[in-house]
Amino acid sequence: MKVKIKNKTENIRAVWMEKNIVKMIDQRKLPFELKFFNAKNYNDVAFAVKNMVVRGAPSIGACAVYGIAQAEAQKKNIKNAAKILKKTRPTAHDLFYAIDYMLKEIKNGNDAKNSAEKYVEKLVNECRAIGVHGGKLIKNNYRILTHCNAGALATVDYGTALAPIRFAHYNKKKIFVWVDETRPRLQGMLTSWELLNENIKHRVISDNAAGYFMRKKEIDMVIVGADRIARNGDFANKIGTYEKAVLAKENSIPFYVAAPISTFDFGLRNGESIKIEERNEDEVLFIKGKRVAPEKAKAFNPAFDVTPSKYVTGYITEKGVLRSEEIKRLKK
Amino acid sequence: MKVKIKNKTENIRAVWMEKNIVKMIDQRKLPFELKFFNAKNYNDVAFAVKNMVVRGAPSIGACAVYGIAQAEAQKKNIKNAAKILKKTRPTAHDLFYAIDYMLKEIKNGNDAKNSAEKYVEKLVNECRAIGVHGGKLIKNNYRILTHCNAGALATVDYGTALAPIRFAHYNKKKIFVWVDETRPRLQGMLTSWELLNENIKHRVISDNAAGYFMRKKEIDMVIVGADRIARNGDFANKIGTYEKAVLAKENSIPFYVAAPISTFDFGLRNGESIKIEERNEDEVLFIKGKRVAPEKAKAFNPAFDVTPSKYVTGYITEKGVLRSEEIKRLKK
Repeated sequence: MKVKIKNKTENIRAVWMEKNIVKMIDQRKLPFELKFFNAKNYNDVAFAVKNMVVRGAPSIGACAVYGIAQAEAQKKNIKNAAKILKKTRPTAHDLFYAIDYMLKEIKNGNDAKNSAEKYVEKLVNECRAIGVHGGKLIKNNYRILTHCNAGALATVDYGTALAPIRFAHYNKKKIFVWVDETRPRLQGMLTSWELLNENIKHRVISDNAAGYFMRKKEIDMVIVGADRIARNGDFANKIGTYEKAVLAKENSIPFYVAAPISTFDFGLRNGESIKIEERNEDEVLFIKGKRVAPEKAKAFNPAFDVTPSKYVTGYITEKGVLRSEEIKRLKK
Repeated sequence: MKVKIKNKTENIRAVWMEKNIVKMIDQRKLPFELKFFNAKNYNDVAFAVKNMVVRGAPSIGACAVYGIAQAEAQKKNIKNAAKILKKTRPTAHDLFYAIDYMLKEIKNGNDAKNSAEKYVEKLVNECRAIGVHGGKLIKNNYRILTHCNAGALATVDYGTALAPIRFAHYNKKKIFVWVDETRPRLQGMLTSWELLNENIKHRVISDNAAGYFMRKKEIDMVIVGADRIARNGDFANKIGTYEKAVLAKENSIPFYVAAPISTFDFGLRNGESIKIEERNEDEVLFIKGKRVAPEKAKAFNPAFDVTPSKYVTGYITEKGVLRSEEIKRLKK
């Protein structure tokens, strides 16, 4: 991703390894300040994952493979490193997958650093391919709505929903992005930060305003990410995604889901069995540490919702853009 | 409205007059602290309106009629009082209407205090009647979604959208209210404050979560207020209302608009000609004085949206509940 550092634009990733140091953008400081976090050993890496220095499942996975490669290079106890790293975010599927992958690679006698880079390159290549395929859907002068941050920060580079937007921009298309602020956690501000760094024109809007701009015909297309996609195309994503999907359909606006094929869970017949995480109500009652609700007020805070496949125009994957009927083919 | 003051529940209004002092709940301190503002002369009243000590068109109108009655009782120059008061909120239709009404009453030799109370009683009676009619639509165990604050704070007493909810509760129905926080200005927190004071069970949710709970069949009914209703039933209300209306229809949930008949503008054929106010982008970029967006980010901030009548199940007015086809009858 492009990032402006002291008047210069540099191309960096959310996480990388350099001379046995795992380096990453410190996402706790964003979108206000660009700082880097240097993890000098696996305990530092564990701290970074646990304390959300790094966020987004693919970026967390990348952090973990580098953490294991670092431990191996530093001749640390790999089993212990794996144990410590696995404890950091107990619900992160990518984290376990990444660590188990590295343990297997080491057991098979493969070079740990090579294996880690191979893992991360695969991630980045998938996002790049999503960008190439999805970028073709974006026509000149398109105004695209996105929700949450399915960007490079979360996926090491390019992003999922933001990858097609980046590629359309790189290909000199004139585009404009509507950015839902995405309450309660305001991840839209991270999307705005990425777009500012890429010089992509955009405006932030309250989540309530997306429908207004759709009805005014100021939105040509919606692209969102996904956390999990069932084999019928129903998908879970950040809370509010379902609302925007229904509104897009009502206003005849194409609605795309951008995600690597690894997001498809072929064991899931549909979205109804996806369990939705309820997060702490304080995310609604407080904003940036300040209480916004009355003293005794209580809140409900579902973090994700499920959008039925009937609202989805297509799934932008590294293998191309698919309709929901075509998902079955992927299984083979 | 019921308000808890030092462990006692008292019945008060948003604005009233007592011994030539115009008294009001200081809405700048809500939802955190209950303080009262005493306006001792028309300059104080003008300050209160201008600085949003009082908000909501009907409450502002009430404030203005009391301000003129107070000026008359204090033998001040009425023309000057009217001029000063009219300057406070240049776009508030109710404000001009209220002041002109008082000038005419005084010119006709009517007692100013009586005229002011007559004006306010009419407002309160309309809201009470909306409560009585709308309350009948709410069945036992209903879970009702509301957006923004169409409550007693804005309308002197009872509210519009909140009046049916209050009456259902007074009539011992078991109800639960879902409160949209209503970004960017978070007026849902005022609704929560009113419901806490009435001991009505509710939870605040992010605006993104309303669709989620509709799809989960946890919302039985939606009631919102309106700023202006065209003669075909299209209506303008707080930004986000359109989104919730589309989602309600998609999920077969009844969607009601609660407003006095004075909100209908029979000169408007439909909602398309309603001009939408764009407010300062800082309402999106900052929350409670803290910047939440990256440094150079920009926002768009439409304050209202228009919802077509096809999404509305009925209009709850002081004359009863009407379908959109029945609005024409009101004109007579």
